[in-house]
Amino acid sequence: MTDAPNPSAALIVIGNEVLSGRTQDANLRYVATRLGEIGIPLREARVIPDVAEMIVATVNELRARYDHVFTTGGIGPTHDDITSECVAAAFGLPWEPHPEAWAKMAASYQPGEFNAARQRMATMPRGAALIETTVTVAPGFSIGNVHVMAGVPRVMQAQFESLAPRLKGGRPVVSRAVHAAKLPEGRIAEGLAAIQARFPALDIGSYPYYRETGSGVAIVAKGTDPAMAALAIAEVSALMTSLGAMPVQGEPPS
Amino acid sequence: MTDAPNPSAALIVIGNEVLSGRTQDANLRYVATRLGEIGIPLREARVIPDVAEMIVATVNELRARYDHVFTTGGIGPTHDDITSECVAAAFGLPWEPHPEAWAKMAASYQPGEFNAARQRMATMPRGAALIETTVTVAPGFSIGNVHVMAGVPRVMQAQFESLAPRLKGGRPVVSRAVHAAKLPEGRIAEGLAAIQARFPALDIGSYPYYRETGSGVAIVAKGTDPAMAALAIAEVSALMTSLGAMPVQGEPPS
Repeated sequence: MTDAPNPSAALIVIGNEVLSGRTQDANLRYVATRLGEIGIPLREARVIPDVAEMIVATVNELRARYDHVFTTGGIGPTHDDITSECVAAAFGLPWEPHPEAWAKMAASYQPGEFNAARQRMATMPRGAALIETTVTVAPGFSIGNVHVMAGVPRVMQAQFESLAPRLKGGRPVVSRAVHAAKLPEGRIAEGLAAIQARFPALDIGSYPYYRETGSGVAIVAKGTDPAMAALAIAEVSALMTSLGAMPVQGEPPS
Repeated sequence: MTDAPNPSAALIVIGNEVLSGRTQDANLRYVATRLGEIGIPLREARVIPDVAEMIVATVNELRARYDHVFTTGGIGPTHDDITSECVAAAFGLPWEPHPEAWAKMAASYQPGEFNAARQRMATMPRGAALIETTVTVAPGFSIGNVHVMAGVPRVMQAQFESLAPRLKGGRPVVSRAVHAAKLPEGRIAEGLAAIQARFPALDIGSYPYYRETGSGVAIVAKGTDPAMAALAIAEVSALMTSLGAMPVQGEPPS
């Protein structure tokens, strides 16, 4: 085990459809969960429209600030798919046919069907490393510390899993949880703050829940040391008991 | 009808639990949909952790750039609920008991139960306007162009609806859609770009869909002129027919 800090990551969700409310984003949670598991915790996410200046500025801001930047959306064949050329512009690189992607895509279509729109999906920043999957012939790509993936969740997930073994991760972020019914946050808050103060290396979160089967509060401790997280949650359990509640290990049933 | 541009909005989702993947955010889509309906389209969203410097910097960046900024999360009683004091810091305002909120909350608890943790929920930037609901006694608030709401979706939604009549909206953003089964985006892309070019006031998006009942593509035109959106979608329908597809009005069944 090393004490070096984990690498950091940001996610850029690109697409008018998420900002208009048409589409419920499903990529943030997937990427966040998987990045935690491989020890590259997600520090920030942004949802931005299909606007070139915005994509270029956001990519440049975040690639300077975090070890990895992931993007989802905007790499299809239509006019609103502009992520790839914007990433090239952000890096100041030519946006040009990627020989390997071009050859594979050309071979996958019937004669005459590899048209200008589809050729755009084989056009990338010079030097891009392909992110290939069996789900679609159109690849994602990495350039520098920016990883460009599709917006459709099943394609994005396949691309993430194809990419993941190439990422140098850190210590996995683990969580331990306890919950108690009918315990208001306002009653546990003071004792919980004291526990958080004793475990500065952990993120301890308090999350009220409301279920048809009842309401209560869940306390979650996250960090890279499973024993420390378990110890903190044991202290939270004792705190809950001292307040007359009945702590139950783990998250509340969903 | 006026030609003045609609006011703009940004959303800040505050909470480690969204960035860790523990919690699926449901507030972005709700806020995005409702803001479109009242003519204050959402231009950007950010998901950030419970880190003071990050909250302060993000609030200040976005309140300068957009007409309205909405925040969700971090206004409960526990140690990780720091949104309210961070918004005060962003504005350079004292963070102090709000007389009306304090009185109402104090009256709602049993003697001795309005403790220090709960008192934090009645502590706000000086001059805050309360966002009150019947769902909870702890209010949200507006200060300047920043609207601070809870993270729990049912509370956030009630607060948004309480606030909405006070917001000066613009022309509602409406959408018209058509979809066609078995039509690849790569075949419609060229004609679609030409239609988008003829309707620069509309956002025309292309969204492939994959259902158990079949796959295809949905084309959505959004804007503040319903007749123009309908006209563009009529042109898209004709394009689909010319490509041998069978256009069906509206979004594909979910």
